[in-house]
Amino acid sequence: MTAEEVRVLAANDAFYEAFATRDFGRMDDVWAAEHDVTCIHPGWSMLVGRDAVMSSWRAILRSDNPRIEPTAARAYLHGDAAYVLCFEGARGENPVLCATNVFVREQGAWKMVHHQAGHLAQTPAPTTTPAN
Amino acid sequence: MTAEEVRVLAANDAFYEAFATRDFGRMDDVWAAEHDVTCIHPGWSMLVGRDAVMSSWRAILRSDNPRIEPTAARAYLHGDAAYVLCFEGARGENPVLCATNVFVREQGAWKMVHHQAGHLAQTPAPTTTPAN
Repeated sequence: MTAEEVRVLAANDAFYEAFATRDFGRMDDVWAAEHDVTCIHPGWSMLVGRDAVMSSWRAILRSDNPRIEPTAARAYLHGDAAYVLCFEGARGENPVLCATNVFVREQGAWKMVHHQAGHLAQTPAPTTTPAN
Repeated sequence: MTAEEVRVLAANDAFYEAFATRDFGRMDDVWAAEHDVTCIHPGWSMLVGRDAVMSSWRAILRSDNPRIEPTAARAYLHGDAAYVLCFEGARGENPVLCATNVFVREQGAWKMVHHQAGHLAQTPAPTTTPAN
């Protein structure tokens, strides 16, 4: 794994840490400030723009959602952009969601510009097997 | 819209055209050949690598899925990478899925490296309103 992949995965971890600790300030810092941001929560329509995306997180972080943790995260770098795939689930339980997280470099730091999470139909086999 | 955004959206259209016409050769051409590719079909686990991803498309294109068309596509460019968000649904019907499609420049052409589609809980309001 390259140093830059480690940095992207650290940005991905920061996102889930903000999520798990329900820390809106940290969540706000995870997301890009100088680029368009977008988000697709499970079952939701697309959210476009920082106001819409951060409003959604403010509501989610206030809600009774379980602590979500990422597993099996993999980073794919493409210049100043990167995406991470990972599973999401409550600690110690089978993952229930699969996510795409897109990051871009902003002032030298990797910042999230897009998140999509979708429900898994079955417990995943991480590499090649469809779950339905 | 910039010329490059138009080109990315054309690559996105080519993906859905290959999907709608069940043309595996065109679908194969849509996907990157020189970069890692990944895919998350609705409800499926993540697919990693060209063999796994193209095998999934070969099976899907042979199946009885309805013709899926994209609507409300928006492109977000970040250097040599870009992503497109769009809804997916049968022609003339309400969209049932929301997708993230990631492209990278390869030999001067925009090629798909990742696709995630997830079910919408309700008919979408495209910009800011969560659907659940």
